[in-house]
Amino acid sequence: MPHSLTHSALKKIYRGKKVLITGGMGFIGSNLARRLVEWGSDVSIIDCLIPEYGGNRRNILGIEDRLLIHEADVRDHAKLPDLVRGQDFLFNLAGQTSHMDSMTDPVTDLEINCRAQLAILEACRQHNTDIRIVFASTRQLYGRPEELPVKETHPLRAVDVNGINKQAGESFHLLYSRVHEIRSTVLRLTNTIGPRMRVKDARQTFVGIWIRALLEGKPFEVWGGAQLRDFTYVDDAVEAFLLAAARDEAIGEVFNLGGPPPVTLQGLAELLCRMQEGANYELKEFPSDRKKIDIGDFYADYTLIEQRLGWRPRTSLRDALLTTLDYYRKELPHYV
Amino acid sequence: MPHSLTHSALKKIYRGKKVLITGGMGFIGSNLARRLVEWGSDVSIIDCLIPEYGGNRRNILGIEDRLLIHEADVRDHAKLPDLVRGQDFLFNLAGQTSHMDSMTDPVTDLEINCRAQLAILEACRQHNTDIRIVFASTRQLYGRPEELPVKETHPLRAVDVNGINKQAGESFHLLYSRVHEIRSTVLRLTNTIGPRMRVKDARQTFVGIWIRALLEGKPFEVWGGAQLRDFTYVDDAVEAFLLAAARDEAIGEVFNLGGPPPVTLQGLAELLCRMQEGANYELKEFPSDRKKIDIGDFYADYTLIEQRLGWRPRTSLRDALLTTLDYYRKELPHYV
Repeated sequence: MPHSLTHSALKKIYRGKKVLITGGMGFIGSNLARRLVEWGSDVSIIDCLIPEYGGNRRNILGIEDRLLIHEADVRDHAKLPDLVRGQDFLFNLAGQTSHMDSMTDPVTDLEINCRAQLAILEACRQHNTDIRIVFASTRQLYGRPEELPVKETHPLRAVDVNGINKQAGESFHLLYSRVHEIRSTVLRLTNTIGPRMRVKDARQTFVGIWIRALLEGKPFEVWGGAQLRDFTYVDDAVEAFLLAAARDEAIGEVFNLGGPPPVTLQGLAELLCRMQEGANYELKEFPSDRKKIDIGDFYADYTLIEQRLGWRPRTSLRDALLTTLDYYRKELPHYV
Repeated sequence: MPHSLTHSALKKIYRGKKVLITGGMGFIGSNLARRLVEWGSDVSIIDCLIPEYGGNRRNILGIEDRLLIHEADVRDHAKLPDLVRGQDFLFNLAGQTSHMDSMTDPVTDLEINCRAQLAILEACRQHNTDIRIVFASTRQLYGRPEELPVKETHPLRAVDVNGINKQAGESFHLLYSRVHEIRSTVLRLTNTIGPRMRVKDARQTFVGIWIRALLEGKPFEVWGGAQLRDFTYVDDAVEAFLLAAARDEAIGEVFNLGGPPPVTLQGLAELLCRMQEGANYELKEFPSDRKKIDIGDFYADYTLIEQRLGWRPRTSLRDALLTTLDYYRKELPHYV
């Protein structure tokens, strides 16, 4: 197993480098931006701050003067050439993440997760072929798993419009890497949790709305309860993006991220309730309108990225939840 | 093996039915339209007649007064609701087919092969959930085959932008069939040949430009030469569309079409040259800019549609080529 780049070696790679983050005020994007600002990168972020999406000005509190903010939409293709020109790295995290929204407004999902991705890559092909890209993809592409844990070679059969568009988005990145030599890596993320995630509703992750209810002293709803899920802590996800962009071995590759051993939704609910006085939840039947796009049990096999890049999840689920709860105990008003 | 619907039973299904064909002045679309007009269907066609695509007014010569022609672009989403409303069948054949064009102008390919497909399905979901759809997909989705003949279960890994967008297009059809009960079938076509194909250039099939050169008395270029390919005669392809839309067993399914035993490109060239006095060809090295998106040998396994719907290619390659040559001996001026 190869040694991962040490923290200080990785830091050195990014110091003084020009880095663009799409979705930079979003959950993972802003955590990545904070790390890179701290490491001395020259960070630009793009975010459209659509209220239903993950972007939130609060996410860049304290670093807002140390980065360049473009309040822009990746669907505004005309702006992309200027944005990508001269950048060393592009962390491409802008996306529509709600599975349900992708079913009710599929064309918007397509424009963000598919068409804009192609436009970003075209901008790179025409204006910056030296850029190094990491694209945030999703476990949703696998659909309902045939076997667990799910490897990257698992057949892809998206169960919703979001999955289809994200699949096209990652395929474009891999194609441009192979054919046009726009060096790209795809990370397929599973549930990611941590400070700065959306907690207003379940559009980004159901854990968000659970935490909101918990902190507001209301019972949260657990649908089903027996489904297994894995969770990546956001700092671990950030490390994966930084490693992937820094390593040539990652070019043209697809890697799963994963987490500590999976838990059932009910297990997660129990764990959360033990962290907050008086918290409780209600078990509900899985809503019928969501059943058609549900994926059952899921947890990822992250052996490939562990072997190739030395990445693994370092944060326990317990620590991840404790840190997240701590954050929202103070910050909740800015996120609801 | 089930018996196929007899010709007369199939004809009865379509008699008096309202049928919409996107790409209806194109190669396969117009052959389908001709058959349906002959069978007494109430046929509407949509075609944008973009000069680089397959649509050609000559293709509907003699039936132009017996169908409704919408000279419209499937990218014009606002028109779609009126077009799909009240139709019994939709044969969805509009597409950008050039692999090379998809690499130089990828966004246009996306808008036609991906975004417009979603818009068509949305129009059906909102205005005509009783419609029965057959979507024309492509073997291009398989990329470079891992084994031959290629079954529907072969991994999908498109090698160009066209393949990625067509894959999204077919995924949308399957999703809408499963989740929204818009009854759809996907046919993955291999090389289709016959009267009314584009012969002006290689945008639809390389066989087109070979035939043009042959009839103009010039040598045609064979790139490589050893690659195996299979060919479906257009009347057989038309039969597959008609069968698929008529059979409930086909709903939500993906079927390969195929052809008589595959031949090498050089074998095909030899066969063609024997059909025309003085014809000849030049063997050329495969151009380097196309190598990256070439798929090597390909021929499809069509066992599944044979078992389920009783379809098989009935026309020999020799007969397919003879009929095609005969057509263009008279018609070439209208196609160049």
